[in-house]
Amino acid sequence: MRDGVGYATGMTHTVLTALALVLAAPAAAQTVPAQVEQLRDSALHDEHAWDITEGLTTEVGQRLAGTEAEARARAWAVAKLKAMGFANVRVESFDMPVWTRGAESAEIVAPFPQKLVVAALGNSASTSPEGITGQVVGFETLADLVAAPDAAVRGKIVFVSHAMPRTQDGSGYGYFGGPRRQGPGIASKKGAIAIVIRSIGTDYHRNPHTGVMSFPEGVEPIPAGALTLPDAEQLQRILKRGRPVTMRLTLVSQTGHGQSGNVIAEVPGRDPSLPPVLVGGHLDSWDQGTGAIDDATGVAIATAAAKRIMDSGRPLRTIRIVWFGAEEVGLFGGEDYLKKHGSEPHYALAESDFGAGRIWRVNSNLGKAREAEAKMLQSALAPLGIVPGALDKAEGSDIGPLLDAGMPGVGLSQDGTHYFDLHHTPDDTLDKVDPEELRQNVAAWTAMLAVLAGPIEPDPKRPR
Amino acid sequence: MRDGVGYATGMTHTVLTALALVLAAPAAAQTVPAQVEQLRDSALHDEHAWDITEGLTTEVGQRLAGTEAEARARAWAVAKLKAMGFANVRVESFDMPVWTRGAESAEIVAPFPQKLVVAALGNSASTSPEGITGQVVGFETLADLVAAPDAAVRGKIVFVSHAMPRTQDGSGYGYFGGPRRQGPGIASKKGAIAIVIRSIGTDYHRNPHTGVMSFPEGVEPIPAGALTLPDAEQLQRILKRGRPVTMRLTLVSQTGHGQSGNVIAEVPGRDPSLPPVLVGGHLDSWDQGTGAIDDATGVAIATAAAKRIMDSGRPLRTIRIVWFGAEEVGLFGGEDYLKKHGSEPHYALAESDFGAGRIWRVNSNLGKAREAEAKMLQSALAPLGIVPGALDKAEGSDIGPLLDAGMPGVGLSQDGTHYFDLHHTPDDTLDKVDPEELRQNVAAWTAMLAVLAGPIEPDPKRPR
Repeated sequence: MRDGVGYATGMTHTVLTALALVLAAPAAAQTVPAQVEQLRDSALHDEHAWDITEGLTTEVGQRLAGTEAEARARAWAVAKLKAMGFANVRVESFDMPVWTRGAESAEIVAPFPQKLVVAALGNSASTSPEGITGQVVGFETLADLVAAPDAAVRGKIVFVSHAMPRTQDGSGYGYFGGPRRQGPGIASKKGAIAIVIRSIGTDYHRNPHTGVMSFPEGVEPIPAGALTLPDAEQLQRILKRGRPVTMRLTLVSQTGHGQSGNVIAEVPGRDPSLPPVLVGGHLDSWDQGTGAIDDATGVAIATAAAKRIMDSGRPLRTIRIVWFGAEEVGLFGGEDYLKKHGSEPHYALAESDFGAGRIWRVNSNLGKAREAEAKMLQSALAPLGIVPGALDKAEGSDIGPLLDAGMPGVGLSQDGTHYFDLHHTPDDTLDKVDPEELRQNVAAWTAMLAVLAGPIEPDPKRPR
Repeated sequence: MRDGVGYATGMTHTVLTALALVLAAPAAAQTVPAQVEQLRDSALHDEHAWDITEGLTTEVGQRLAGTEAEARARAWAVAKLKAMGFANVRVESFDMPVWTRGAESAEIVAPFPQKLVVAALGNSASTSPEGITGQVVGFETLADLVAAPDAAVRGKIVFVSHAMPRTQDGSGYGYFGGPRRQGPGIASKKGAIAIVIRSIGTDYHRNPHTGVMSFPEGVEPIPAGALTLPDAEQLQRILKRGRPVTMRLTLVSQTGHGQSGNVIAEVPGRDPSLPPVLVGGHLDSWDQGTGAIDDATGVAIATAAAKRIMDSGRPLRTIRIVWFGAEEVGLFGGEDYLKKHGSEPHYALAESDFGAGRIWRVNSNLGKAREAEAKMLQSALAPLGIVPGALDKAEGSDIGPLLDAGMPGVGLSQDGTHYFDLHHTPDDTLDKVDPEELRQNVAAWTAMLAVLAGPIEPDPKRPR
């Protein structure tokens, strides 16, 4: 669904497709080893993932990439992974540019004086502490901004109110994220003094959705912020009154350099000559919530699954756990891993970075020669209510470059219906994690690891 | 339910009570005049209440009592009420003390450095801009704080995490609001340097619930704030680790004096010698949302109902609409009305100040001699899905003193299941108002006015 399936399909086509899938289902069924089933089902009682999620969000909290908070998170991660008994726990460090948030506010000066709630986007230019004041020019869509003559924008504060719809698979985030990703650059090129967008989110709370953007080479950075949905719709109502609207916008930020790193740990396989199965998520978070669903649960799910395999014996292949650093602000951790390990073979890659809603679909891209293994994986997951998806794709932000380079991968798709209610907001906190859904995730990941890294044999060093 | 029914009732008693109510219901049925039914049903298509709510929240926004924002709201109200065609539109002004919010923040300094989201409570003492730092001592309930020895509290920042349950009738707000209302005074008397409470609310968003409190005579004011539920539970988790917890708390505020006022308008009755029916809500709001459900919808519902009566002809009795000023910060508008009009007879009083959820129950206290009228009102409202409630009580904040003095009143109870998700938070914005539920409110209020102020006869000055 992510990559455009269903564009030109009418009802009949859709029904036929669904029917074809139903008819195809029995053919996909594979006998699942009892070991996989047992590991999967016992993982429905998992406590490791909650323990990691609760610990990281409570004892560290927010951990913006490149800051001392992320460094504390790495130290926490190393201690935790060692305490859990993993092998080869280490940090692979790298340097990176760091943007940090300062004071921020927005207010309508005229015609109806009132404050709005705003958050700067990552890499926004900084205003002075007093802010800037300008007339607001509103656009319903990014296309409208693109089409506007420069004269309509020059010297003004651009406002784009493009609304992202709610979807299960998160597929709206690409297209409807345009105002955040491209909007600031387009507005700057047309001479705008700043831009505010409707948050790329689906909730109606006064918690703005931040997120990274960057200005194209040669384009002057301008202050760029996101209004909450209630504030964006308020501004739309004010603009509809037809009188000139003046806004004062303060978005103070600092830029500098810092260090981040990927935290890596392993469950050694019985045959060290075989390529590892890489599972992970990202350790860093945005700065206003505690990064519970983005992405404490991601590292927790992957790690809990690996822990369950480790505690059950010794897998054939090594499981490599990576808690990537600096994902949010530009995939720096993924890039660093690619640089250092991109030439090593990997048996499969999987990343959890879409919250902790229950997993509803499995995609994979293991290659034609491993189709039986891919179908076995589908069969192993089906009892958890997971729909067999594509056999020719996988996804993941940090592992994206490796997948793009043709490495095998698996995508366990979380239900994202409510993900963008919380994504990149102060509301991304522990209370949003449903322990039962988290356990379903761990069960799916455990089953996946049992299929891909198994079979698992008794570990002579760990009497059971 | 509000005043303690059900304390000592076992299951049997409850079932018998329910049965008695069911059996009693037919006896309460009264023939409802066609005029009342027609006005009620046509009000289900009302647009006036939305128009007022949308206009006030968009063109004024927040309107903290005693500030220039509330003054703008009064000017808006006068213009609106005149434009709608009401008579005798006027402001009755009064002076009042004014507390206003400044910079505010909270952070855990040790053992796990992180920011928490806090809002000062109304009448909090101010910290310096640098804030104060102290060790946190936590209490699960207000009773635990009361029971604590002074030595355990002296010099510390008190934290009370008492949690209010969700109820339909809002009855938890009295008892569980104690940490906000009494907590600061109790903490100060024991020598605390500040207090933070778990917000008196039911939602898990990072939007704290403010609200007024006051220190008893002779008790030193201290800084007092409310943490959001996610932050309060985070602080509880941190305290549970058992290490000393240090917090830095900044709650800057200013105090001064200002002017507020009640905005009054009327639908003149055919017989001016009869006492008026007073309907209203409050115009002021807390300072962080736009006061949509607290209480733009309240004034909107009462006013829309009066407008519908006015447009249908001329009622027997005068309808007096009051948009009370300065309710949130201490019922100053209600007090002023009492002082200026408390000795005048009123035929009935009703105030809408519990959001815009659908009305589910009607209470009234019209006196034994008017029981047939009260039952007629029940019958007129039943088709809207409204349960006949008590015949010996009514409620309302600004009209409370008048009701307490024995004046007749009606209480149309809104469904408050979700009210405390929004109450006194930045999230109290227009998008939270359901237009269909708002119309059900207007229909109920219109039916009530048709019963109490009617019958309505053609107005020679307003040909229909």
